[in-house]
Amino acid sequence: MPDDCLFCRIAAGVTDAHLVLKDEHVVGFLDVRPVFKGHVLVVPRQHVVTLADLPDGLMVPLLGAVKRVGNAIISGLGAQGTFVAMNNVVSQSVAHLHVHVVPRTKGDGLRGFFWPRTKYAEGEAEQCALTIREALQH
Amino acid sequence: MPDDCLFCRIAAGVTDAHLVLKDEHVVGFLDVRPVFKGHVLVVPRQHVVTLADLPDGLMVPLLGAVKRVGNAIISGLGAQGTFVAMNNVVSQSVAHLHVHVVPRTKGDGLRGFFWPRTKYAEGEAEQCALTIREALQH
Repeated sequence: MPDDCLFCRIAAGVTDAHLVLKDEHVVGFLDVRPVFKGHVLVVPRQHVVTLADLPDGLMVPLLGAVKRVGNAIISGLGAQGTFVAMNNVVSQSVAHLHVHVVPRTKGDGLRGFFWPRTKYAEGEAEQCALTIREALQH
Repeated sequence: MPDDCLFCRIAAGVTDAHLVLKDEHVVGFLDVRPVFKGHVLVVPRQHVVTLADLPDGLMVPLLGAVKRVGNAIISGLGAQGTFVAMNNVVSQSVAHLHVHVVPRTKGDGLRGFFWPRTKYAEGEAEQCALTIREALQH
């Protein structure tokens, strides 16, 4: 555990947070600056920096906790859906993997990441897919 | 497999897509209207509507594929990081669970979901965390 990692400190109980979930592998707590109220961060207790560093053995504990928290913000807070996201490296404010679970309601005004979109030029998508397929071989 | 589900059709090979990954449990293909070029959707081949419906047995196949695709768009496309997200119900354009894996580069202009943020009034965070904790008991 890096002493200077905020989320390791929260997981260890050294730094306070509004916890919603704590088990052997993960903790979930309120984001202090929520996109919408009830915005939870779910993090592995182990110091994992990005998704690239997440061991297979933590995937079910992490994604299972995200699923349970998503269900709870729907049933508990009356949300209609959830936005689940993680930033790896770019836009990642704390260098400890954290999954955002944000309550969503139709018409909540969240335009979000998904605009504007771009387009592929002729032949460009084929090339892009090929590049990714090749990178997946390594 | 619902005949009218676009992602089931892509998974079955009935509808074309720029595939980057296909295995027993998941397929990955280019989003036709990418946030940035190289934006991949990873979906379970089984018709799962939202994260709430995802069986534990598909979590490692799905999140493992997302991790591998994320690594590939970094190594193959020269991205610096990734944005990984799923919309459940609200803002979910296709009713078949799909994880967005979007290449990110510093200064790429993506303001994103994470602005603006709101604040909790005095005592409100405690109440909100309590409500979620209680919902997690059910």
